[in-house]
Amino acid sequence: MATSSNLEQEIEQQPQVLQRLLTSERPIIQQLVTELHHRQISQIVMAARGSSDNAARYAQYVFGSLNGFLVSLATPSLYSIYQQTPQLKNTLVLGISQSGQSPDLVAVLAEARLQKVLTAAITNFSDSPLAQQADYVINLNAGVEKSIAATKTYTTELLAIALLSAELSQQSTILKTVQTVPELVQKTLTLNPEINHLVERYRYMKHCVVIGRGYNYATAFELALKLKELTYTLVEPYSSADFLHGPLAIVEPGFPVFVIAPSGKVLPEIQALMQTLKQREAELIVISDDQETLKFAQTSLILPPDIPEWISPLVAIIPGQLFALNLALTRHYNVDQPRGLQKVTETR
Amino acid sequence: MATSSNLEQEIEQQPQVLQRLLTSERPIIQQLVTELHHRQISQIVMAARGSSDNAARYAQYVFGSLNGFLVSLATPSLYSIYQQTPQLKNTLVLGISQSGQSPDLVAVLAEARLQKVLTAAITNFSDSPLAQQADYVINLNAGVEKSIAATKTYTTELLAIALLSAELSQQSTILKTVQTVPELVQKTLTLNPEINHLVERYRYMKHCVVIGRGYNYATAFELALKLKELTYTLVEPYSSADFLHGPLAIVEPGFPVFVIAPSGKVLPEIQALMQTLKQREAELIVISDDQETLKFAQTSLILPPDIPEWISPLVAIIPGQLFALNLALTRHYNVDQPRGLQKVTETR
Repeated sequence: MATSSNLEQEIEQQPQVLQRLLTSERPIIQQLVTELHHRQISQIVMAARGSSDNAARYAQYVFGSLNGFLVSLATPSLYSIYQQTPQLKNTLVLGISQSGQSPDLVAVLAEARLQKVLTAAITNFSDSPLAQQADYVINLNAGVEKSIAATKTYTTELLAIALLSAELSQQSTILKTVQTVPELVQKTLTLNPEINHLVERYRYMKHCVVIGRGYNYATAFELALKLKELTYTLVEPYSSADFLHGPLAIVEPGFPVFVIAPSGKVLPEIQALMQTLKQREAELIVISDDQETLKFAQTSLILPPDIPEWISPLVAIIPGQLFALNLALTRHYNVDQPRGLQKVTETR
Repeated sequence: MATSSNLEQEIEQQPQVLQRLLTSERPIIQQLVTELHHRQISQIVMAARGSSDNAARYAQYVFGSLNGFLVSLATPSLYSIYQQTPQLKNTLVLGISQSGQSPDLVAVLAEARLQKVLTAAITNFSDSPLAQQADYVINLNAGVEKSIAATKTYTTELLAIALLSAELSQQSTILKTVQTVPELVQKTLTLNPEINHLVERYRYMKHCVVIGRGYNYATAFELALKLKELTYTLVEPYSSADFLHGPLAIVEPGFPVFVIAPSGKVLPEIQALMQTLKQREAELIVISDDQETLKFAQTSLILPPDIPEWISPLVAIIPGQLFALNLALTRHYNVDQPRGLQKVTETR
């Protein structure tokens, strides 16, 4: 790692970018909360792709559990290709996109406007086509993301969602928890030199699975996407429950499985699956703060202690980003410009 | 294929099982439709796992496009583990499960009952715990499914959803289309001997990707699941749009990609992706009725012509089932009892 890549720089920038969002976007988020209360809206339809879709997965759990909101992920082709759209009444339609460019996502918000439904966008470009369809624009203010793989915009999207959920909840402990994120991310970034060494073992890994559940279902998807984009490994993310409903059949001795396992209510379920995987002699790479859980691990990626589960996805993805970065470097891949990808993907 | 496996028998039974459902379950489905109209419900929350979750993916598109319903997939852990549940008012909560046993799915319907919300179940066991929480039970009547991999219960779940959507639409052409399914499936099953030969080429395939979009997003997921369960291949399903947002990076020359490409509104998008894949020298296995599309294919799995797109997932999965069956047989795997799986998976 002689000269630092854009990707590594952007990973390192996360604490400051996250801190900035907490200050700059609080007023607009509070305005949106007032409007949601005023209109008695308790439902959100989200439109997103790629890393932003993983942020939307996180939002499903946060808004569901902290706010009692019913959250659904839009099926953009109904809006953009079939043009036979659901009735959106009494919902907030929320688009999440770094670039704010993809026509299928813009189509979802445009339809919401036609139906006179409240719209919002979380984006890094406040003048993008997506933002132009939004009544409220939460600006990530993450600075230009030069690397094709999203890192700082992903965690900042999560934080925007967490802050919106916290403001909706109006609970002081929840609001305080959100403020701790930049420091927790800073602490976790100190794993970088250690991860730089331990990726050696995975130099020739061709495929793997990533397991997460509940709040960290999103983390499983995002880590899988980083590994695919940056290291060209074949990776499939699963909830621990879905994995047992069929896909478990693929696990042979030595099969590598990443497990997202921070302390929390889903941990016993995750541990039960880890026991099954151990019996099948899987190789476990575990992201956790829990000593008992880390005993299952061949490779441990240790999180700071005492992170409330609902906010843990913001921290648990950091070792994943670092793992993907370092594994790609070990393989001598171009981490800023993975083969065949562009920064802005426009899909219809 | 000396003695026929349960799996093969169950695949072959599909036309008669589908025909039975059309007759036996129409009355209960009509009652449910009356209740939905009466209560002015236009939203559905679905809870399902495994193949049934793929049926739920189909339902998102069908109820969205034909009925204007807003459909969301439940996040069962919010109900079973976190016990912090969304407000479900004015929705139909629909559980889909072959066995009707999984506690996390039962928890979703039980919470809906607590909230005095309308519930329904689509299941092969009308006395199951899931059915007991349902105001309306649509019985698959598929007979015992002995093979662990779901085939006839999957297509019958799709048909139950299609019939419910058709009855809700009250449009005669749509209702007529549903009636054509058993014969279309029968026709497609005649591909079996041909597929038995052409799987030879894929004897040593270790991994692949399956692409589908819109209505056939579900088909991509279900084919991927069959290949995983039966052939232990590493398979990841994608929408053509999501695949372009990052995962495209994994495609090298010779990389096998299954493409679900029946005629319809998403076909131009799928064709555009196929062109990109061809440039990268991917190996394309294509399920389609369209001659132009099949020109891209190394291996063609040809569907009957003139199937309306919205019903095509019921037919397009058939070559997929046959491919997974025959590939597993070529590899001398036990197709009725894949390693490490049970028929009833109970997850919390």
